[in-house]
Amino acid sequence: MPQKRSKFMSDKKLILVTNDDGFEAPGYRKLINLMRGLGDVIAVSSVEPMSAMSHAVTMKVPLRQRLVKEEIGFKEYLTNGTPVDNVKMGKHLFLDRFPDIVVSGINHGSNSAINVIYSGTVAAALEAAIDGIPAIGFSVNEYGRDINMSHTDDYILKITRKVLVEGLPEGVALNVNFPKFNGEPLKGIKVVKQAKATWRETYEERIDPYGQKYYWMGGVFLDGDGRPDTDEKAMLENYVAVVPVKIDFTAHELLDKLNFDD
Amino acid sequence: MPQKRSKFMSDKKLILVTNDDGFEAPGYRKLINLMRGLGDVIAVSSVEPMSAMSHAVTMKVPLRQRLVKEEIGFKEYLTNGTPVDNVKMGKHLFLDRFPDIVVSGINHGSNSAINVIYSGTVAAALEAAIDGIPAIGFSVNEYGRDINMSHTDDYILKITRKVLVEGLPEGVALNVNFPKFNGEPLKGIKVVKQAKATWRETYEERIDPYGQKYYWMGGVFLDGDGRPDTDEKAMLENYVAVVPVKIDFTAHELLDKLNFDD
Repeated sequence: MPQKRSKFMSDKKLILVTNDDGFEAPGYRKLINLMRGLGDVIAVSSVEPMSAMSHAVTMKVPLRQRLVKEEIGFKEYLTNGTPVDNVKMGKHLFLDRFPDIVVSGINHGSNSAINVIYSGTVAAALEAAIDGIPAIGFSVNEYGRDINMSHTDDYILKITRKVLVEGLPEGVALNVNFPKFNGEPLKGIKVVKQAKATWRETYEERIDPYGQKYYWMGGVFLDGDGRPDTDEKAMLENYVAVVPVKIDFTAHELLDKLNFDD
Repeated sequence: MPQKRSKFMSDKKLILVTNDDGFEAPGYRKLINLMRGLGDVIAVSSVEPMSAMSHAVTMKVPLRQRLVKEEIGFKEYLTNGTPVDNVKMGKHLFLDRFPDIVVSGINHGSNSAINVIYSGTVAAALEAAIDGIPAIGFSVNEYGRDINMSHTDDYILKITRKVLVEGLPEGVALNVNFPKFNGEPLKGIKVVKQAKATWRETYEERIDPYGQKYYWMGGVFLDGDGRPDTDEKAMLENYVAVVPVKIDFTAHELLDKLNFDD
């Protein structure tokens, strides 16, 4: 179905943009604008925020989608899906071929360390990587809607251009985390490991107007990783932390050690 | 708060059981019954099925929980949370200490190969592993409510007993997949790798009674992994497939190769 693309697309690079904070998030609008300088853009996001949806896909309710904007070199869809749904729908419903790259974000909040497993932003990038599509997730280590992301532009363009030109090894995506803006210029890019860290959850108990208990989850982030070359350390030193990521849960170092013989 | 446990618990092993198919799923009821033979059991599951919820946690709506059964050595809670929420709530709201083990399942459907990333069953086990709690996810490679799981009992007990006695390395859980029951006895246990495989998604378009389009996602599973020692291959040969799993998305082999210098 090559006509699907030719309707609105040039022969420029084809870029799928998504996020997990909902389509109105300033980080998402910024990423779309940056990417429109690099190629033709299909933007697919959800009406509702989808933070902490991880790699969830929608199976209990039907998926809906709506084309809300169409310009030369740009189409924007809204859905009721998760970030991973949005990548899957982008590939199969809205494009006649795989995109040249999938970029996700810019997330309001860090996806470093263990946050990678809860993150919808990184899940979207990993979902693309499963199909061999180069992909990058971008996040800033500051929460809130109106955070300063001005320090990210040049690095996002530089990293995306490099991946568009050179590609990435099959199955690999980049998880890019920016430190919170502190007024100083960033020191550069560090390629680092996912830090070993955990959340110590807390549950705040409240009583609803009908007398029933309910709970909000909160938590404290605990970085217990002493290694120097982690994403957490890189951000602390005001570097952009780039972790090459892939999906292989196998603990390979144990394959020869575990056995269940009697 | 040691009195919380002493109210109903002995000094037997403390086992947290959860799943992602909802509290009524036969695989979950079976796993609870098996575990009650091994120790004191806290069962925490959701009212609604939570398949394909991956590592999602609940942040947009408050969490609710209800104690629905209490016997000597057994408590059962229902929640509106995801499998990962249920492990977190189990640890922090329903227990005075970490359990000795978390077991999840028995899932109706395989969680081998790439399914591990979509699975709520394995996510629950990995969530426990993050905190250093030995954990196992159990799944059967057959879909439907009334599948035959009679071949799983002895192996579930054997594997769980071994982990209760020997523990697991910190951060590691076991992803255990049983082949579909085929009338023959299982050949034994194989410790294997997560197979490289993908889903080729399909979207079935329908029109709702109000004239609006909607979509159901389906797909075809593609195992393109030629290696002999994968979970998919083990199940094909009628072995129980055990993959030791951990959360580290870092593509370590690329750390020295990627660079963003000008």
